[in-house]
Amino acid sequence: MNNINSFTRPKSLAVIGASKTPGKIGHSLVQNIINSGFKGKIYPVNPREKEILGLDCYKSVNEIPGDVETAIFVIPAGRVIDAARECGQKGVKNLVALTAGFKETGREGMELEKNFLAVCKQYNMRLLGPNCIGFLDTHTPVNATFLKGFPPRGKIAFISQSGAMLAAVLDWSITAGIGYSKIFSMGNKADLNEIDCISEAAEDPDTKVILCYLEDVSNGPEFIKVLSEVTRKKPVIILKSGTSQAGAQAASSHTGALAGSDIAYDSAFKRCGVLRVESMSQLFDLAILFANQSVPKGNRVAIVTNAGGPGIVATDKIESHGLSMARFTKETIEELRLNLPPEAGIYNPVDVLGDAKAERFKFALERVLKDDNVDSAVVLLCPVAVTQPVETARVLIELNKTYPDKPLIAAYMGGQALAEGTRMLSESGVPVFAMPEPAIGALAGMSRYTEFQKRDSISLIDDFKPDQKTVKAVFYDVKKDNRLTLLGSEAAEIIAAYGVPETPIKLSRSPEEAAAIADETGYPVVLKVASPRILHKTDIGGVKIGLNSSFEVKTAYVEIMENVHKYLPKVVPYGIEIQKMVPRGTELIVGMTRDVQFGSMIGFGLGGIYVNLIKDVSFRLAEGLTDNEIKEMIAETKAYSLMQGFRGEKPADLDSVIKVIKRLAMLATDFPEIMEIDINPLIAYERGVAALDVKITLS
Amino acid sequence: MNNINSFTRPKSLAVIGASKTPGKIGHSLVQNIINSGFKGKIYPVNPREKEILGLDCYKSVNEIPGDVETAIFVIPAGRVIDAARECGQKGVKNLVALTAGFKETGREGMELEKNFLAVCKQYNMRLLGPNCIGFLDTHTPVNATFLKGFPPRGKIAFISQSGAMLAAVLDWSITAGIGYSKIFSMGNKADLNEIDCISEAAEDPDTKVILCYLEDVSNGPEFIKVLSEVTRKKPVIILKSGTSQAGAQAASSHTGALAGSDIAYDSAFKRCGVLRVESMSQLFDLAILFANQSVPKGNRVAIVTNAGGPGIVATDKIESHGLSMARFTKETIEELRLNLPPEAGIYNPVDVLGDAKAERFKFALERVLKDDNVDSAVVLLCPVAVTQPVETARVLIELNKTYPDKPLIAAYMGGQALAEGTRMLSESGVPVFAMPEPAIGALAGMSRYTEFQKRDSISLIDDFKPDQKTVKAVFYDVKKDNRLTLLGSEAAEIIAAYGVPETPIKLSRSPEEAAAIADETGYPVVLKVASPRILHKTDIGGVKIGLNSSFEVKTAYVEIMENVHKYLPKVVPYGIEIQKMVPRGTELIVGMTRDVQFGSMIGFGLGGIYVNLIKDVSFRLAEGLTDNEIKEMIAETKAYSLMQGFRGEKPADLDSVIKVIKRLAMLATDFPEIMEIDINPLIAYERGVAALDVKITLS
Repeated sequence: MNNINSFTRPKSLAVIGASKTPGKIGHSLVQNIINSGFKGKIYPVNPREKEILGLDCYKSVNEIPGDVETAIFVIPAGRVIDAARECGQKGVKNLVALTAGFKETGREGMELEKNFLAVCKQYNMRLLGPNCIGFLDTHTPVNATFLKGFPPRGKIAFISQSGAMLAAVLDWSITAGIGYSKIFSMGNKADLNEIDCISEAAEDPDTKVILCYLEDVSNGPEFIKVLSEVTRKKPVIILKSGTSQAGAQAASSHTGALAGSDIAYDSAFKRCGVLRVESMSQLFDLAILFANQSVPKGNRVAIVTNAGGPGIVATDKIESHGLSMARFTKETIEELRLNLPPEAGIYNPVDVLGDAKAERFKFALERVLKDDNVDSAVVLLCPVAVTQPVETARVLIELNKTYPDKPLIAAYMGGQALAEGTRMLSESGVPVFAMPEPAIGALAGMSRYTEFQKRDSISLIDDFKPDQKTVKAVFYDVKKDNRLTLLGSEAAEIIAAYGVPETPIKLSRSPEEAAAIADETGYPVVLKVASPRILHKTDIGGVKIGLNSSFEVKTAYVEIMENVHKYLPKVVPYGIEIQKMVPRGTELIVGMTRDVQFGSMIGFGLGGIYVNLIKDVSFRLAEGLTDNEIKEMIAETKAYSLMQGFRGEKPADLDSVIKVIKRLAMLATDFPEIMEIDINPLIAYERGVAALDVKITLS
Repeated sequence: MNNINSFTRPKSLAVIGASKTPGKIGHSLVQNIINSGFKGKIYPVNPREKEILGLDCYKSVNEIPGDVETAIFVIPAGRVIDAARECGQKGVKNLVALTAGFKETGREGMELEKNFLAVCKQYNMRLLGPNCIGFLDTHTPVNATFLKGFPPRGKIAFISQSGAMLAAVLDWSITAGIGYSKIFSMGNKADLNEIDCISEAAEDPDTKVILCYLEDVSNGPEFIKVLSEVTRKKPVIILKSGTSQAGAQAASSHTGALAGSDIAYDSAFKRCGVLRVESMSQLFDLAILFANQSVPKGNRVAIVTNAGGPGIVATDKIESHGLSMARFTKETIEELRLNLPPEAGIYNPVDVLGDAKAERFKFALERVLKDDNVDSAVVLLCPVAVTQPVETARVLIELNKTYPDKPLIAAYMGGQALAEGTRMLSESGVPVFAMPEPAIGALAGMSRYTEFQKRDSISLIDDFKPDQKTVKAVFYDVKKDNRLTLLGSEAAEIIAAYGVPETPIKLSRSPEEAAAIADETGYPVVLKVASPRILHKTDIGGVKIGLNSSFEVKTAYVEIMENVHKYLPKVVPYGIEIQKMVPRGTELIVGMTRDVQFGSMIGFGLGGIYVNLIKDVSFRLAEGLTDNEIKEMIAETKAYSLMQGFRGEKPADLDSVIKVIKRLAMLATDFPEIMEIDINPLIAYERGVAALDVKITLS
């Protein structure tokens, strides 16, 4: 179903709504198809014309003598349904609807789009658009857009949810000489969406890197499934806009409040190994690197520069992007020392000095590329006195061929004086920037892909058999009680059923019962009022800690009930919960929340009452969570430093925390009716953990 | 002394080491001076030539018939001293030494540079360089560099500590058509430094914005003094490299560990109102805005776009840069609704749709520029079907003139199709970018300048009279005791003398004395072992909390001493300190540390034991700290949310915290021998604060 290969390699094209009038879209389109050098049949369709741009014109699709593989609509929205039906009857396989006036215009348009799609499905036709700009493929070749210009051939596929963005990118790329394999404008995504287009580009031997501009994703789980496979083969770089809407969703849990749809996208992209960028320039900087250089084996960068200042700037950026400055072997350093002038910088960055000609650049660059401790190299060149930008460009091009496994990037810092060298580098596939910062930024993106590729994707294997019966029984009671929020004791029972070591908490309904429970549990204990209607229990005097005897427990029971009666006279608590006090340890939070698009997400980070303030929580998708991902998510947080024994404290039990995360993911997957879980704090000790306070909400 | 005006407007120039050989620096330099159209006298000096480039050549400076205002050295380092002496005798005012081979080459060079400077001082000559590229001024005009090309006239002054960077920037700017007023290459900064160059540019009526590339600052306090004045008149934008060396310094306090030289630069730049940028592109993006547009009154931005996607991207960036999307008045919205097509977006961003011609852009843009809720506008244009990039450019240029107080920026997203419009905008001073992100980024920088301008600079007025006698007495004892670290009780005494409410802590030397003190203080109390040699007191059982009676105090005293004896048999404590336990409150940290370059810095943030982990500490320079700065530094932290009553808790006493920060700044200024102070935690209550644990280290 997902194969849309025949879209970009059609044998014949019909243009429904072709026009003889220059300037009209129906005219530009036919002109573009002809000019692109399309080798298949082209059939303009227009009931009022006999001939358009030298081609026979047909009154309707029916009248076309041969087969039509793909039909492109440039007719008004009102005529689309009839035309689609005709195409279906003719046996057309694919439709491309440039026509606007559908979902994007409101309710009526949405209805029309639905009917349009129904006709397509009836005749088994795939549909690109409507409200799109079309597609092009430089290798077929075919230009089925109405835009001016056709980009040079290249290895970049670009897929855009915004037609205007695509128009901009295309115009800009043609001027900059950036080549593409194919471009898709998805429009309203009535049928074909990013998954289809990305899959097509993934299969395409002419495509080396896939770029996307997305505003949303049509099908979260499918996106994750397909993209996880695609990124193993080719890098996928996505600019996802709409981040400012993040965090708008309301949530009752800490975990929920910290997540939000943008975090869900982030988690999904991380899961799939998609590289997310924050700006259009990053998108293209990275694309040019991937299209022309091989992926580095690691993140150790060597800098060769003819000027100190830019070398420092580049070093700063290498650190801030999480790359590392390569440490050369003794042999490299010794050779550099022997062969470069005494004032040269022989450690990284290698400063070949302002009077360096191409030969000196060559010596230094070759030496560092040879070094096993170097994964990639960046050359910085400033136009000073004797600089040989053209000859140096030749050196770079040659060395890039000799060391094809180590990506090489140049920053030719200047304008006219370096224009010829810059052009040569660019044409020979050595990415070249005017400033060091974007060069390092793009290299960092490439290294992130290397890291993604190194991840193994073994999903969590845990032979633990949860006690699902207990969970079902508790949920049964809660639903019967018309509640969505579980009591603390209920929540503790749930996670215990999934093997998360909870701190036993029991509900009592009288001072005497409380005292008996406390006697059994052992002292000291905490008493908390049990009521889903009381959110901030401490504030109304609903919590008493450090109780050391049955007498203190009984007194506290009465006091709590009096406080509730005083502050919240309308609330009748279920009783009071008794929990044994646990020793201090590292306070963590582990939680779960759900996203409409991508399903359940697990959050982990620094726990305690200031969770929402400190915001040290990282997220991953719960379903199919791998060991690797769990380790990554833990390592992303400050909580991780804490767990390693911050300030000379004892380290916390990492394995037990990993197990808690796994079990929570398992629970979230097994019971989709769980809306949110907060274990806060989860106290981690040198050995073992204890869930102290658990909140579970059902949907 | 700082006036180097005569540098850039010399009446006569001598080139010491002028050459007849094309390609030599001494030749390029003379050629550049002539080609720049310099109207003063030019005297080439070279003992072996009679004439150079049509100018009479002199054997030495002495032989020059007229006065020489400025001499430029392109002679070898070994001849510099003699030449300088000759210049001095001749009455030359200024020297520019392009000659290399000084401080940058090691010890010998440093010695030579010192001697060179001594000669200059002897004859009252100012020196630019050595090891620099020279200077140029487009208004004089004069080009006293050996670089190729002379930039167009403009309003940007550029001052660089890296000559190569300058060469790159100049070449790039000439190609991009960016104009400059003047450019200084500072080289080794033996005499003239960034303060001199910036001061000169500040006085220059042709300069509207000052750019700097800096690797260090020569004189911290002077830099702060001068720059604070300059930024009131003109924006100063600095790219300071070397951030990766930050945090390298060792420090014994939390505050010290969190600071570092890069934070000191940050604090200094904030104090002065300098705009710090992170990359070369940001430097120039911002410069172009300041050179051409007026500073916005506030941060409310209106977007007018002909495409949805880029509008979303721009909105995301506005939020992430801390700008705000303008909320139009009812009248604006109504007018937009009445006059734009029904599908148009009439709220911000205003989407004038893909079929918008120049007229529709004009209507929408004029309407939003008129709106009192709009401080600036960004126009996004994609090259779709009927777009009129040139006509739209004319509209923008015209409206920018009609509304000169509201900065207008364009993102013309494309290449060839928009080239003519882009050129027109750029030439008419409407900043234009190829993508929306840098446009928003630059606007954000401009708004930061607006905020700086709004700050009042009233330094803290506090009629508090500190008890300096007590401080001196304590320091006297500590020094006599050969210590640098104060005991807790001593530190508490110090801050009490500066009016910071401390929690009384007293030293006892026997169980009985401890019990007597506790009886007087009131229970519960904490006991802590008093020894500057024990850093982690809790770990060795040196702290006992929650003691409720004199019996418990005596027992605890003995236990602590036994623990110390067991774990650290060689340590003999001074005794044990007794402190009353205080109620819980908001835990903050206030501290002080010193930077070699910029002096004492005050830090404020979230306190507690995880200070170094959470890193929620902001810094300002202590000396001359203003009320405004204190409020800013508090507002920058997460601690601020906490103080406002996070999670329904009671708000903390902001005024008292401000007072503590002021007093600490006062103390740090009064006693420069204090190296570091940590008050952690400072507990803030609804009314009042209490310093619970105070550490003071002397230098």
